[in-house]
Amino acid sequence: MSSSGLLEDLIESLRCLPGVGPKSAQRIALHLLKRDRKAARQLGATLVAAMDNIKHCEQCRLFTEAELCRWCSDPARHSTQLCIVENPADVLAIDRATDYRGKYFLLLGHLSPLDGIGPKDLGLDLLDSRLREGGVEEITLATNSTVEGQATARYIVDLAAAYKIPVMQIARGIPVGSELEFADSGTLSVAFSQRTPLSD
Amino acid sequence: MSSSGLLEDLIESLRCLPGVGPKSAQRIALHLLKRDRKAARQLGATLVAAMDNIKHCEQCRLFTEAELCRWCSDPARHSTQLCIVENPADVLAIDRATDYRGKYFLLLGHLSPLDGIGPKDLGLDLLDSRLREGGVEEITLATNSTVEGQATARYIVDLAAAYKIPVMQIARGIPVGSELEFADSGTLSVAFSQRTPLSD
Repeated sequence: MSSSGLLEDLIESLRCLPGVGPKSAQRIALHLLKRDRKAARQLGATLVAAMDNIKHCEQCRLFTEAELCRWCSDPARHSTQLCIVENPADVLAIDRATDYRGKYFLLLGHLSPLDGIGPKDLGLDLLDSRLREGGVEEITLATNSTVEGQATARYIVDLAAAYKIPVMQIARGIPVGSELEFADSGTLSVAFSQRTPLSD
Repeated sequence: MSSSGLLEDLIESLRCLPGVGPKSAQRIALHLLKRDRKAARQLGATLVAAMDNIKHCEQCRLFTEAELCRWCSDPARHSTQLCIVENPADVLAIDRATDYRGKYFLLLGHLSPLDGIGPKDLGLDLLDSRLREGGVEEITLATNSTVEGQATARYIVDLAAAYKIPVMQIARGIPVGSELEFADSGTLSVAFSQRTPLSD
């Protein structure tokens, strides 16, 4: 492409982006050089600053530049309620869709012994000491509805039982607005067995 | 996602990548923070270095860190032959597939008056002065087989005619290994009218 080791370095470096192979990396590098050098330089500086300065909130493990994240440092949020999620994006989604006003705790993944991901990697030791301190009166589990998510949920239920803290799980069932015909049998089975009363 | 303006900056900056919208940008940012901070920091530094140091070769407009690119500074390549291409990737493709050993000239696009892309944006003034200097004995046009590519080719033919330099164009026709049934009528028409003798 050029005599430039730097261009080849750039193409190689771009491959750390998820889903970017050698051909896409080349296309992105040439696009940025041809059309958008200013934005690319800005992206470079922001990447370095973000990777150096963004760490985990000491209480809930969300990404933050400060010691405590926006949620943990918000006095208007109830510390008695704790919602446990797998991913940072889940926090945003719950905030947008619900009127939940408690705190969060972030696992950043799920238990997966085959991949070497144990309780410590999910910060479950941190959660343990937080529950031991007291103050949390109810836990809401919003882990993903996958086998690994359920296994992680099971572990947390056991953890909370030691401190006699009740654990709720967000409801599984037919998605709102969808038709029964298209629901898979697992979802339909859960939805049927957990039917809720409609008449007063 | 966090109290971090930096994380939002990062998500916003990532949108300069081609094909990356707000959702992908968020996914990429969280992926890098979670899984690959070292590579992301490296990418950031490389982006800044590349945008600051990679410029165009003074002779052929390829990307390079030096004044002349690898091809222009290679004494083993014949300066009498000049191959004109639209994109940097085309140079690599021709080098890989053919035994062409001349020099290149890069347009970095094609004539497109509606988008405000005129001869000067394609470096055709640079090409003009190079042809005026003399030394080039044959031009091979390898612009894309599109309407804009053909219009650009036409312009270069006129330019070269002023210096009486012959211009060749790479052959249009049925792709090797493909079946007639699947060729579009434009390709088939060109391939038929430019049939070449097989018998000696």
